[in-house]
Amino acid sequence: MSRDRLIFVTNDDGYMSKGFSAMVELASEFGEVIAIAPERVQSGMSQAITINQPLFLRLAEQREGVTIYAFSGTPVDCSKIAFDHLFSERRVDLVLSGINHGSNAAINVMYSGTMGAAIEGSLYDVPSIGLSLDDHSADADFEGAVKYGREVIASVLEAADRLPRPLCLNVNVPRCAASEIQGIRLCRQTRGFWREDFFEREDPSGRKYFWLTGAFQNIEPNSEDTDEWALAHRYVAVVPVQTDMTDYRVLKSLDGVL
Amino acid sequence: MSRDRLIFVTNDDGYMSKGFSAMVELASEFGEVIAIAPERVQSGMSQAITINQPLFLRLAEQREGVTIYAFSGTPVDCSKIAFDHLFSERRVDLVLSGINHGSNAAINVMYSGTMGAAIEGSLYDVPSIGLSLDDHSADADFEGAVKYGREVIASVLEAADRLPRPLCLNVNVPRCAASEIQGIRLCRQTRGFWREDFFEREDPSGRKYFWLTGAFQNIEPNSEDTDEWALAHRYVAVVPVQTDMTDYRVLKSLDGVL
Repeated sequence: MSRDRLIFVTNDDGYMSKGFSAMVELASEFGEVIAIAPERVQSGMSQAITINQPLFLRLAEQREGVTIYAFSGTPVDCSKIAFDHLFSERRVDLVLSGINHGSNAAINVMYSGTMGAAIEGSLYDVPSIGLSLDDHSADADFEGAVKYGREVIASVLEAADRLPRPLCLNVNVPRCAASEIQGIRLCRQTRGFWREDFFEREDPSGRKYFWLTGAFQNIEPNSEDTDEWALAHRYVAVVPVQTDMTDYRVLKSLDGVL
Repeated sequence: MSRDRLIFVTNDDGYMSKGFSAMVELASEFGEVIAIAPERVQSGMSQAITINQPLFLRLAEQREGVTIYAFSGTPVDCSKIAFDHLFSERRVDLVLSGINHGSNAAINVMYSGTMGAAIEGSLYDVPSIGLSLDDHSADADFEGAVKYGREVIASVLEAADRLPRPLCLNVNVPRCAASEIQGIRLCRQTRGFWREDFFEREDPSGRKYFWLTGAFQNIEPNSEDTDEWALAHRYVAVVPVQTDMTDYRVLKSLDGVL
């Protein structure tokens, strides 16, 4: 372990999740770990930030080379307070977010708190990796995610000086035995969207309420350069993520309209 | 007013906000309005969705051509229940989100609940417009936003058949008298990020807490094709928004690294 490196770890499932513990252990192989993770589950929180509400930070665990804080804010709040408050005097070498319980491939990157925190971290000019396993269960088996996560982390740290900034990787690992994983593929984000099925219920006083459930619609299931294709074929999918949301194609077609 | 058109209206400041009322009035000039807006303020909620929590929908107001629901979920939840539950049998002609109290130019597009809901709406193949005024105050003057919003809406509806899908516009209006606005500019998203200043306080029992405050860092203030430049020069900024977050430039530079 290199004590010279400082690794910031966060997630969206909260500091008590199994995936977070796996990420802290993995990170500690590469350097000193300081983690700030949400106090409670913050899945689906995207790039949300907390405005006009107080935020509580508390030390949850401290041991040799590992310090873990629980924070009452969103995943992005975790990254912000890490860089703009806790680390203001220290150089951070790597941001790791996850290991998420559930895939953040395709358009899930936009809804994901795990990726929200990873993207935010990358905006501080530090290489950032969001790591997710395509398995939502609380006791998911993270062996494959740890194995391939380790490989991606080592490669990024080794090449960090010559890679561009911001650098944010969305790494998704298929749900299968580690030995069945076919390798790592560089991909682009699959085109597609969710369609929801709202379960309708009534509370004891007759008030209607809904549960959001849905299914991802992949509109290009046969495109071999996409992250969904990679996962479906038992590859680890790596998609670099950026924050310029301008649609340059549409920009051209608006000429003369506006 | 054309009763043939159906306009879906939402926002992130909640159904009680002044900007939302201004948007409903504006929308009703173009067709029947059905609005679903958050029960409470949801600023900064980004593309967040509500997982594993029940969602409550209630009719808040009904009058000639205008129906308004208040929803306990996020702005994106509002768009999802509109299209996947309420409108499943009806064709929607336009999505309008706002009028937001505060600019959503530059990287704010990623944190904004207003734009989260607008983006989500565009994924149902309906033209979508997020409209924001560069003024956070609760009693902001929406005259300029309404005037230029009307112009953008009319142009989009007129050209809807020949414009590509998904189509989502991030429209930001400067804070000045309507008569001082210089016109409309098609722009790209300004490059930049926020740096935060966490105000630290102590509660009566000595527990530390923080308030998130910050300032936007524009790393290209002189680029005349950006939305921040347009706003600073009293133009209405229009940026088309897409959902492919792949960083294709970085994808190339990862060749051989992973």
